[in-house]
Amino acid sequence: MNIFNVKSRVYYEDTDAGGIVYHANYLKFMERARTEWVRDKGVVQQKMLEQSLAFVVIDMHIAFKLSAKLDDLIQTTCQVTKLKRASIEFVQEVRKGDSLLVSANVKIACVDSRLNKPVAIPKALFNKIKAEIN
Amino acid sequence: MNIFNVKSRVYYEDTDAGGIVYHANYLKFMERARTEWVRDKGVVQQKMLEQSLAFVVIDMHIAFKLSAKLDDLIQTTCQVTKLKRASIEFVQEVRKGDSLLVSANVKIACVDSRLNKPVAIPKALFNKIKAEIN
Amino acid sequence: MNIFNVKSRVYYEDTDAGGIVYHANYLKFMERARTEWVRDKGVVQQKMLEQSLAFVVIDMHIAFKLSAKLDDLIQTTCQVTKLKRASIEFVQEVRKGDSLLVSANVKIACVDSRLNKPVAIPKALFNKIKAEIN
Amino acid sequence: MNIFNVKSRVYYEDTDAGGIVYHANYLKFMERARTEWVRDKGVVQQKMLEQSLAFVVIDMHIAFKLSAKLDDLIQTTCQVTKLKRASIEFVQEVRKGDSLLVSANVKIACVDSRLNKPVAIPKALFNKIKAEIN
Repeated sequence: MNIFNVKSRVYYEDTDAGGIVYHANYLKFMERARTEWVRDKGVVQQKMLEQSLAFVVIDMHIAFKLSAKLDDLIQTTCQVTKLKRASIEFVQEVRKGDSLLVSANVKIACVDSRLNKPVAIPKALFNKIKAEIN
Repeated sequence: MNIFNVKSRVYYEDTDAGGIVYHANYLKFMERARTEWVRDKGVVQQKMLEQSLAFVVIDMHIAFKLSAKLDDLIQTTCQVTKLKRASIEFVQEVRKGDSLLVSANVKIACVDSRLNKPVAIPKALFNKIKAEIN
Repeated sequence: MNIFNVKSRVYYEDTDAGGIVYHANYLKFMERARTEWVRDKGVVQQKMLEQSLAFVVIDMHIAFKLSAKLDDLIQTTCQVTKLKRASIEFVQEVRKGDSLLVSANVKIACVDSRLNKPVAIPKALFNKIKAEIN
Repeated sequence: MNIFNVKSRVYYEDTDAGGIVYHANYLKFMERARTEWVRDKGVVQQKMLEQSLAFVVIDMHIAFKLSAKLDDLIQTTCQVTKLKRASIEFVQEVRKGDSLLVSANVKIACVDSRLNKPVAIPKALFNKIKAEIN
């Protein structure tokens, strides 16, 4: 089984004075992976936004185990664990080679970005995700 | 009882194309509050760093409930729930007026930033925290 | 003469692995100062955005002279040097105590954020700026 | 002639409430390009840092002409215009397809990150850059 993943390079912008990646920036790596996973299903979020649709993170449990450093090449996975009409749950991991750096459970909701209310995930995308997890 | 809190203004830098604060940036607001809470106890983290000591986040459970927008004035709290020799647990909340935007359980560890190993929280700081929570 | 300025604290989020403030983050400090300068004139940019109006930086010349570190308290100034119908030019400086860290010439334009075209600065704001520089 | 360039995808993290890339983030794209250009010459900046060597930006003149949006694929170039013993000057451009979004003149210096003083660019790197521009 192959898990969807995205490679990222660690640049100065990602690090902090402790000499390691700033903790909040792992959330950016995780969102990049979810964005590419959605794109992989044919959905471009800028197009969603133009229809006032956006995915927003509503819950996140993150364990920071090891740190990445400047110039490290890391991989971020993205795997669906639950699909509902207006939300998706993922397990995501950030790895450097064989080392697990960060793992997270992430729940996102589809919202109307003007009303800030939950709305159904677009039908075509929903069906592709459903096919993927079955 | 008064809970330690820090005010932050939302600037363009904090927002994203969805028109709201980018989710990862709430972690910055929470760290600002923890930093000021530590400073309030007489500890400056730059001085810690010069002795190779740093606090790092090791676990975080965050619920994103409502969104802040550009120009909002928000408050971020910082309250200790558990103190151990080398780690501290907090409950933190981000509020806009009476509205709870984000709540989180955050666990940080004191580490030797060169060896990347847990070390005891500096004695004077540990004692002040202990006094605060009793 | 008093020059408009805004205080900022340097947090971990602002620093990089070189142990100093990441160069691009001085642009954030400068925008915070411009934002507070505009607010000081009674203008809230979120309200502008709701009318599809935004200030965008169109030109910037920055000299990075000295570095700020974690926990430093810095001051960022904001001073108009030229006012036109749809653009404003500033000199901005970032200082730590008596030391000049960064100086910049910044030109911003008022744009229609939907059409991405220059538009006149709102009349009331224009007049207040004009009064300030005379 | 082929100019060194690096592709970047625009993610939510890069955008702001104006619906476009936040101006300071173009500096990140430009640094990613310089980092890959240095790596292309066999130099890893983490290794430099471990010897207390870092490149820091000392002067930057940036013209922001057009904006990138969420999901855009952009290219950032990196071209040396002047090489000195302890500094390098570049012209950098950010493009989306045929459109020039941002152009900049950037001067970086090689510094001892502990003393914060200029030092000579490592010999091997200096020679490779010299060969490239001749």
